[in-house]
Amino acid sequence: MTSPSATQDRYPYQNEPIWSKSEKTIARKAFDAALGRELHEVIQEAKKMASQIQQSSDLWDLEHYLTERRKEIDRKYDYRYSRLTHVFGRLLHEGRLREEELHGLREDKLKPIRSTAQFLAKYAA
Amino acid sequence: MTSPSATQDRYPYQNEPIWSKSEKTIARKAFDAALGRELHEVIQEAKKMASQIQQSSDLWDLEHYLTERRKEIDRKYDYRYSRLTHVFGRLLHEGRLREEELHGLREDKLKPIRSTAQFLAKYAA
Repeated sequence: MTSPSATQDRYPYQNEPIWSKSEKTIARKAFDAALGRELHEVIQEAKKMASQIQQSSDLWDLEHYLTERRKEIDRKYDYRYSRLTHVFGRLLHEGRLREEELHGLREDKLKPIRSTAQFLAKYAA
Repeated sequence: MTSPSATQDRYPYQNEPIWSKSEKTIARKAFDAALGRELHEVIQEAKKMASQIQQSSDLWDLEHYLTERRKEIDRKYDYRYSRLTHVFGRLLHEGRLREEELHGLREDKLKPIRSTAQFLAKYAA
């Protein structure tokens, strides 16, 4: 038997910020914009690679490129509110999102977003 | 312990035709020609698909197409002499190889090749 207080202590999301309705709208718009830009990049690169195919190895290089990008995008663009500050922090760090696009989010979201971006910048240096 | 005769009886390729040196040259040339034509087709189709990409679903359709074609080509073009009459039979059936390209092979190869092609034609009908 687990006591109610022990269950509460183990609730995994208890320290996560609550996203208001207007914050959710801002988050969705910023998320979709970054994803759209990244997909646009991949589309342009795929068209370029395809136009330059001369032999079968170029063909399978294109396949490999697409598979890797699909997996990376699937992993990166995770729209769970429990993951979103990390996702936005990474997108800021990668230059795929400008901080202005997050304007309207409260400090309890912006702080962990900036902190993730700063951590990744240090880690990359 | 296995007796020599028992080992011989179980040798898996005992009924397979022997490919002479000149037959191997003809086979390799026909095989490479068919493979080259099929790869050329896939390259042309990939370039066409890439040029028409408008949204991300088109991008992943291209990836899926390339993966499926790579797997199919890997399975189909099996240059083991134990598999080659079957491979050529299939290529004849698919119109990827003309019988003239096999000119110079002996009847012990041509017979199973034609027989495979005929079987596949019946199977498809």
